[in-house]
Amino acid sequence: MDALKQGWFSELSVLWSGQSFSLQVEQVLHQEKSKYQDILVLQTKSYGTVLVLDGVIQCTEKDEFSYQEMISFLPLASHPNPKKVLIIGGGDGGVAREVAKYPTVESITQCEIDDRVIEVSKKYLPFMASGFDSPKLTLHVGDGFEFMGKHQNEFDVIITDSSDPVGPAESLFQENYYHLLSSALRPGGIVCSQGENMWYHESLISGMMKFCKRIFPSVGYAYTSIPTYPGGQIGLLLCSKDPTTKFETPLRQFSDQELDEMNLRYYSSEMHTAAFILPRFAQKAIRPRLDNGTTNETIK
Amino acid sequence: MDALKQGWFSELSVLWSGQSFSLQVEQVLHQEKSKYQDILVLQTKSYGTVLVLDGVIQCTEKDEFSYQEMISFLPLASHPNPKKVLIIGGGDGGVAREVAKYPTVESITQCEIDDRVIEVSKKYLPFMASGFDSPKLTLHVGDGFEFMGKHQNEFDVIITDSSDPVGPAESLFQENYYHLLSSALRPGGIVCSQGENMWYHESLISGMMKFCKRIFPSVGYAYTSIPTYPGGQIGLLLCSKDPTTKFETPLRQFSDQELDEMNLRYYSSEMHTAAFILPRFAQKAIRPRLDNGTTNETIK
Repeated sequence: MDALKQGWFSELSVLWSGQSFSLQVEQVLHQEKSKYQDILVLQTKSYGTVLVLDGVIQCTEKDEFSYQEMISFLPLASHPNPKKVLIIGGGDGGVAREVAKYPTVESITQCEIDDRVIEVSKKYLPFMASGFDSPKLTLHVGDGFEFMGKHQNEFDVIITDSSDPVGPAESLFQENYYHLLSSALRPGGIVCSQGENMWYHESLISGMMKFCKRIFPSVGYAYTSIPTYPGGQIGLLLCSKDPTTKFETPLRQFSDQELDEMNLRYYSSEMHTAAFILPRFAQKAIRPRLDNGTTNETIK
Repeated sequence: MDALKQGWFSELSVLWSGQSFSLQVEQVLHQEKSKYQDILVLQTKSYGTVLVLDGVIQCTEKDEFSYQEMISFLPLASHPNPKKVLIIGGGDGGVAREVAKYPTVESITQCEIDDRVIEVSKKYLPFMASGFDSPKLTLHVGDGFEFMGKHQNEFDVIITDSSDPVGPAESLFQENYYHLLSSALRPGGIVCSQGENMWYHESLISGMMKFCKRIFPSVGYAYTSIPTYPGGQIGLLLCSKDPTTKFETPLRQFSDQELDEMNLRYYSSEMHTAAFILPRFAQKAIRPRLDNGTTNETIK
């Protein structure tokens, strides 16, 4: 089970102990240790090029579109008119690629801490790093906390495309980060963050839902299927400053032709709604209980 | 990557080459070669007891409910009044357990080819094999093809809970099997079968949808999330003899209290509908084209 042993890469993490997903490797394209993390790029037999950070698969050429489309379009289509978007993390460029497609978006600011992820992605993952070519994009290399401390009341949507809550991204799963997000949003603004997996991280997710509910009037949890993430899916946590936001009902509906023109392969308006329908076990575990004992009805 | 090497079980198959899912093993509870297949029961660190047939994970204690509930309740709730149900395969008892919960079901007939799977499940997987205790159940050990050849116009719902289309279950993915299913159904009857994975088996699925559409007036495809199946999900193929069947709209809606009383942890009426909403890439790839070039509108 050692990584790269006998031509296979195996993913192990304390976040999903006792299980491992492995990919057959045709070639190791790149390997380095940046200031923040280990960066590995693999050419695999069945998933194309794969980016691995600190031993955890971040994205593969075959299935990355699912995550990038959903973490971008769920918040954007839940907002009445998103113009200014901030991306925290997302160093591979995939989220920028999707956000740039959205018709009303005028400017995208991205803050990624590790410039080596950006450079490696530009060289080895051009299908995602194409997001960096958008004329709407301004790219900052730096810490998301510091960046948001200097930007108040500025963005309509903020997307946090982070790795898992061990290592450099740990602070992005904590309450003070969500206070910063709230301050950086304009009135009616929406955030969407990578939200781990309902099958493994119930207490992490329910804890986050609880503090989000203290900060934002509307909170939602959705998920998207993606074969190369642990358990084959990843959750998405959404919060809105607008108490009338109903995340499961997109404000902007796209026709099939529009979706084709944007080359969307996963997202549709129907999928937007379906993504918020959780299995009963998850619905019960992670919907936040309000102080008066009732449940938040925006969480299905 | 060898199975059971260094305390881990690794799943490899030609059906999803180039990738492997592994579970840390605490104890091998049982291992035998039956007349039909290799049977392995493992005690794992993070998924409880696991049944493996011919090297492929069939079900784990942690997540089996997702599959068993969905393969049972999707067809049952799509039928106006299911009374007689046939299960082909399902030797672990999990599907029988779920079907027995359904309020209108009066009799369940099950035909499993390998009695050793039944006996091993009764001994090591009592949480599923409890399905065999239902007073509604009649259990036959034998071949599903032969059984259905002798049973015409008899069942309201037939569920095929099979392993993958290599080995003993291969014939259950072919057109003549679906002709037999059609003959064994009463008017208005519905079938639901394990339908592989939309991320890996587009051509198998689209081929099946095509021949099903020749045999049945209504055909649908849904999926359920389940971490220990390849890609973290499994598809479900549904066909109805009733041309008015709209699979995505359950005819029977259950309240939260009813779902609790049936101990359903995945299925709900909302999840029933959401399960038929496919990602765009799958929607395009697997919905059958009719002869006149239009698409089947029951396939979303």
